Amino acid sequence: MEIPEKSIRIGYDKMKSEFFRILISVGFSEPNAERCAEIFTMNCADGVNSHGINRFPRFIMNTRQGFVKPEAVPSLIHEFGSLEQWDGNLGAGPLNAAFATDRAMEIADENGTGLVALRNTNHWMRGGTYGWQAAKKGFAFICWTNTCQNMPAWGAADPRIGNNPFIMAVPYKGEAIVIDFAMSQYSYGKLESMKSDGNKLPYPGGFNRQGQMTDDPGEILETWRVLPAGYWKGAGLSLLLDIMATILSGGLSTHQIHACSSEHSVSQVFIAFNISKLHNFPSIESSIHQIIEDLHKSIPVDSSSNIRYPGENVLRIRKKNLEEGIPVSSAAWEKIRNM
Amino acid sequence: MEIPEKSIRIGYDKMKSEFFRILISVGFSEPNAERCAEIFTMNCADGVNSHGINRFPRFIMNTRQGFVKPEAVPSLIHEFGSLEQWDGNLGAGPLNAAFATDRAMEIADENGTGLVALRNTNHWMRGGTYGWQAAKKGFAFICWTNTCQNMPAWGAADPRIGNNPFIMAVPYKGEAIVIDFAMSQYSYGKLESMKSDGNKLPYPGGFNRQGQMTDDPGEILETWRVLPAGYWKGAGLSLLLDIMATILSGGLSTHQIHACSSEHSVSQVFIAFNISKLHNFPSIESSIHQIIEDLHKSIPVDSSSNIRYPGENVLRIRKKNLEEGIPVSSAAWEKIRNM
Repeated sequence: MEIPEKSIRIGYDKMKSEFFRILISVGFSEPNAERCAEIFTMNCADGVNSHGINRFPRFIMNTRQGFVKPEAVPSLIHEFGSLEQWDGNLGAGPLNAAFATDRAMEIADENGTGLVALRNTNHWMRGGTYGWQAAKKGFAFICWTNTCQNMPAWGAADPRIGNNPFIMAVPYKGEAIVIDFAMSQYSYGKLESMKSDGNKLPYPGGFNRQGQMTDDPGEILETWRVLPAGYWKGAGLSLLLDIMATILSGGLSTHQIHACSSEHSVSQVFIAFNISKLHNFPSIESSIHQIIEDLHKSIPVDSSSNIRYPGENVLRIRKKNLEEGIPVSSAAWEKIRNM
Repeated sequence: MEIPEKSIRIGYDKMKSEFFRILISVGFSEPNAERCAEIFTMNCADGVNSHGINRFPRFIMNTRQGFVKPEAVPSLIHEFGSLEQWDGNLGAGPLNAAFATDRAMEIADENGTGLVALRNTNHWMRGGTYGWQAAKKGFAFICWTNTCQNMPAWGAADPRIGNNPFIMAVPYKGEAIVIDFAMSQYSYGKLESMKSDGNKLPYPGGFNRQGQMTDDPGEILETWRVLPAGYWKGAGLSLLLDIMATILSGGLSTHQIHACSSEHSVSQVFIAFNISKLHNFPSIESSIHQIIEDLHKSIPVDSSSNIRYPGENVLRIRKKNLEEGIPVSSAAWEKIRNM
């Protein structure tokens, strides 16, 4: 078992200003660096370092390599009613995705639903970011992305489909209920962190070199044969998400996206639903509250833990991290400081 | 092991005319009986007897009980741009769903996307039916339904969420690529048929009375503790699908729907995407074809079986069954003949 790295807590503002400094140094404008730094820092505040501080150095490297263009802005390719196609022009994934989310809400303001399909964009880091963004503005929201080939189809030995994260979000008490899940049972980030902590997975998460299902994250990282969530179900959903992202955006499909080491030019879909003018009784807020109240009445198998809705725990983590500082490994922080 | 029942093959027209006769006898009009009989028969032709001939007697019983109203037609409650709310008025689930699918496509014709949210409707039988319906007309399509409480939340012992089937479909070569999956790893229909055939599940599908995961379908049917597909992922997605169906339609949520023995008045969402006018290069047909060609290049783990896209096998089953007759158990057919 490897020894876990020392964890330290860094204040939100301090972390954000370091990200800002580095983003400026690679060519981002002040407003773009501000927004991008905010997204990376909030991902850490929400407990998702894998798509925050731990991923930031790679994001900067991809910018220096020219895969991420710091000054690119999305351009409108085609519009038809509530459906718009945009080209991300290889801009920063988080900025493009935040823009597309805002634009989908604007369309929905006029049109009931609003769909933005985005081609030639980049990794959006944490998909949940955009679910929270829309739901906090009062919209119901769905979005997804395709990825490079990082998962085998069901019954296959070689990775030809993506893990294509899918997000659904609804407003709740000024915050949100958000599900953000990749089509693999575990993300590569999770496998890596479980491996480096010397832990086994709670359930089998892929196949080893001998073709057997295993709960050893290191063995799975050797084969890239991660298990689709729900076996054939997650694999099938991944394929349909890729096809729909590709045809709606007119962008690249998983099999056309460059190797995962330099994944860029992905395709994404953002759909906002304007729920502010619907004809509902009781109110939407009350409907959701009743659903959550019923969920909370569940009898837990382990009597020491309660049943939570997706996103419920994030609120607790965020509050604590904003008050006490965001926990990161000292090595990760040192790396940022030296960039 | 129980002895499997004798299987016989019944021609499409013969089966459909029996369904038609019975539907007329419980109060359906000729056009409604025709459409409804067609949907039930096609489900069988596609190999889904669990939502065809095997479910038909219960559908008729629910009609006689007054849960399904044979002459009800959906009524428009509210419209706002590309988003419409309809009341199903407790009409037949398959007729209401087919109507909502058509209506979503009509809205998308004008508006790019079209969303119909349907309250107070009934079990739609097989969700894939509506995916095929829309994709064969050239639309990309998503729909889902909520259900009664038939699955525990992740970590819970009592069923408080639904298995809420989710469908995505796109056109392909005049037919369709369709994924149709419930949020439980196995449907109750599958558990029942595996149990009655004396088979174990290929992977664990739920928990037994001792709280252990099991591949014995009979043990799971005793507890109703079915396993969500992808564990916490399927459970979380189920909750979000229920919340969105409830708030978009203004209908009942899973916790408000009557006991599964008389499940009725469910909420559903249908979203059509008009892909006929998009700005794509290469063409949509060619994009999808390239994706499928790449998928088919997968190296199968079992060299005797090829990797297929969702719906690929349905086409083969349908062709054979339409040519040679639809295989059903003689007992199920006898039951229909005597109704």
